[in-house]
Amino acid sequence: METNEFFLFLLVILLTARLFAELAVRLKAPSVIGELLAGVVLGPSLLGWIEPFEAIKLMAEIGIILLLFEVGLQTDPKQLMKAGSKSLVVALVGFCLPLLLGFSLAYWVFGFSLLVSLFIGGTLTATSIGITVRVLTDLKRQNSKEGQIILGAAVLDDILGVVLLALLYEFSVGGGVTLGNAGKVILFVAMFFLLAPVSAKLMSVFIKRINSATEIPGLIPTTIVSLVLFFAWLAHTMGAPGLLGGFAAGLALSRRFFLPFGIGLRADESFAERIEKEMDSIVYLFTPIFFVVVGLSLNLREIDWSSPFIWSFSVALLVAAIVGKLVGPCFIREAWPSRWIIGTAMVPRGEVGLIFAELGRESNILSNDIYAGMIIVIAITTLFSPFAMKELYRRFSHRLQSTE
Amino acid sequence: METNEFFLFLLVILLTARLFAELAVRLKAPSVIGELLAGVVLGPSLLGWIEPFEAIKLMAEIGIILLLFEVGLQTDPKQLMKAGSKSLVVALVGFCLPLLLGFSLAYWVFGFSLLVSLFIGGTLTATSIGITVRVLTDLKRQNSKEGQIILGAAVLDDILGVVLLALLYEFSVGGGVTLGNAGKVILFVAMFFLLAPVSAKLMSVFIKRINSATEIPGLIPTTIVSLVLFFAWLAHTMGAPGLLGGFAAGLALSRRFFLPFGIGLRADESFAERIEKEMDSIVYLFTPIFFVVVGLSLNLREIDWSSPFIWSFSVALLVAAIVGKLVGPCFIREAWPSRWIIGTAMVPRGEVGLIFAELGRESNILSNDIYAGMIIVIAITTLFSPFAMKELYRRFSHRLQSTE
Repeated sequence: METNEFFLFLLVILLTARLFAELAVRLKAPSVIGELLAGVVLGPSLLGWIEPFEAIKLMAEIGIILLLFEVGLQTDPKQLMKAGSKSLVVALVGFCLPLLLGFSLAYWVFGFSLLVSLFIGGTLTATSIGITVRVLTDLKRQNSKEGQIILGAAVLDDILGVVLLALLYEFSVGGGVTLGNAGKVILFVAMFFLLAPVSAKLMSVFIKRINSATEIPGLIPTTIVSLVLFFAWLAHTMGAPGLLGGFAAGLALSRRFFLPFGIGLRADESFAERIEKEMDSIVYLFTPIFFVVVGLSLNLREIDWSSPFIWSFSVALLVAAIVGKLVGPCFIREAWPSRWIIGTAMVPRGEVGLIFAELGRESNILSNDIYAGMIIVIAITTLFSPFAMKELYRRFSHRLQSTE
Repeated sequence: METNEFFLFLLVILLTARLFAELAVRLKAPSVIGELLAGVVLGPSLLGWIEPFEAIKLMAEIGIILLLFEVGLQTDPKQLMKAGSKSLVVALVGFCLPLLLGFSLAYWVFGFSLLVSLFIGGTLTATSIGITVRVLTDLKRQNSKEGQIILGAAVLDDILGVVLLALLYEFSVGGGVTLGNAGKVILFVAMFFLLAPVSAKLMSVFIKRINSATEIPGLIPTTIVSLVLFFAWLAHTMGAPGLLGGFAAGLALSRRFFLPFGIGLRADESFAERIEKEMDSIVYLFTPIFFVVVGLSLNLREIDWSSPFIWSFSVALLVAAIVGKLVGPCFIREAWPSRWIIGTAMVPRGEVGLIFAELGRESNILSNDIYAGMIIVIAITTLFSPFAMKELYRRFSHRLQSTE
């Protein structure tokens, strides 16, 4: 790709994202919807001006891990732990139920094979941590009680999703799906989550030391981005979702994260604040690229809207996708508005669902028709739950605990 | 390229650049040398870990236009105009003399064809605006009198270089090289430099208005980066070097740039300051990538060091390359230390020389041997003149006017 063409694409993506986000907010919609729609409009679905190309996809990936980093940075690990058991219930039910419902529909109602049905169920388990977190941040509810439950559940859901994807992958290439394999992945992920924050924290202490000694400006942007990239890389290498590496790094550098025995405790708050300040504009620059690329990747033109199969299939799956996520919060002790909000926040499938569906198509497990049906489910859950969340917050805000 | 591999490469590039820059500064060398060497070490010249790949090259291009943007932002257009005639003399002599010397050596001494000799001379005309500007910024001399002369001369040299490149290109593909063609390019470039700052300024006034009305954070990073990309794209489309678009945009948004009739004059300073502050970390993140990529692109392994031709050819050209740039400042009324510094600042060929040499090789005009010789000249001028500049400043700083 020529530099000049790249510059043009990138600036069109950034400006269209901004324009649509501003319009969305004027129409009382979440800004992330504007960015997703910008991608749908620019991409193959509508105008066909920009296909998702390699460099922009890679920059989008930087965007999502930086967003998760920033959310981690603003998270209180103690709060997250406190919400832990509730998050676990929400994540487990929201994982198993859609898998079960999706699989049953596909296997018994539509009569697909075992593997195809497992893939369809698997796609329904996804929760788009990116969309969810972005809506919470936009509404400034990421530190609220229900926000912490959602965050924890989204993280756990992502881990479960990766484990399932790994198992399905083994299954589809004919390898032995053993509990041992699953156990290995879970063990690695657990190890990652124990070790990553501690080592990230130690590295940040090191960065702070260099920062007071160096004469060359720009230490924080380059080293903190490197740190985030490193933990994303490490997470992926250990079998966990890469973006959770970004989250772990953010958590470790947050103002309220302290190492055991209080190492590096003093005067850390101001450094955490400084990191936040210097990273802000970088995060703001990269994040919209991610959501536009999700929109670009949703090719709604591939769908044959006249096919009765696609209609019945996608409507059935859509119900399974929504119900499957709304039931989980009923099992935890929270007021009803909180339960509704938590359930709704888990609904968008976004980029995680797309990854599942793409993998299924690429390995010839999902036919084009089934793929198209999944795309409809992903598009609708992704585009409408942010609206629903915003509306729920508007209606019930007086009955929710204020932030923190 | 896989996301995970990209993350690893990017973080290795960022961290190695930082490490080598810190080492360079400890050894009293300019930090940009560290970044260039990081590229040489990581790249095909030494370890061969990272080849320059598309996504990183595109991010490097963002880096260089953002650096030029920031330099423009810190430049006083009036000072630049005042230095104008001196800059013109330095640029013209520093363009014609290396062209003449390089051509003569190639044509009469080494007996190459007309086209090959023209390409060799053309490569010697380049001045790496990136390296020059970076060294000035590191030494905090970009606003000094000699700094303004250097800046203006580097900009003019870049324009002349693009005109020559366009002519050589036409010449090599057999199109008619007419004065009309050259005139057209110069006309477009002049138009660009008249219109760009005014329209960039108007756009920034518009951005400022939206900024006070929007609820979504992150307006400045996305829109200012888009603005810079737009002017880089426009410059390139009109036949000027893209990075000068970044410079023009920065100039327009600088604190001291006022539109005719004082439009948008009030309270602008604080907005310019805010832009500088919010753009800082983005510039710091992308800039080192550019210099590392220059280092990655210098493949010193391709050089057959045992060939006597390469030694004689590159030594002869090196003398021409250095002398050709040092003579220019002798024609302007400045003290000797200033003259030396200005001349030395024009010596590094850097990325501009590489573009010339690459084009010559790709179009089969330059043989591998000649290309290798040019690479030696580019590497030596690029790596050593920053040292020389720093040393000259150290020695003569008491005899130079203090900044502004």
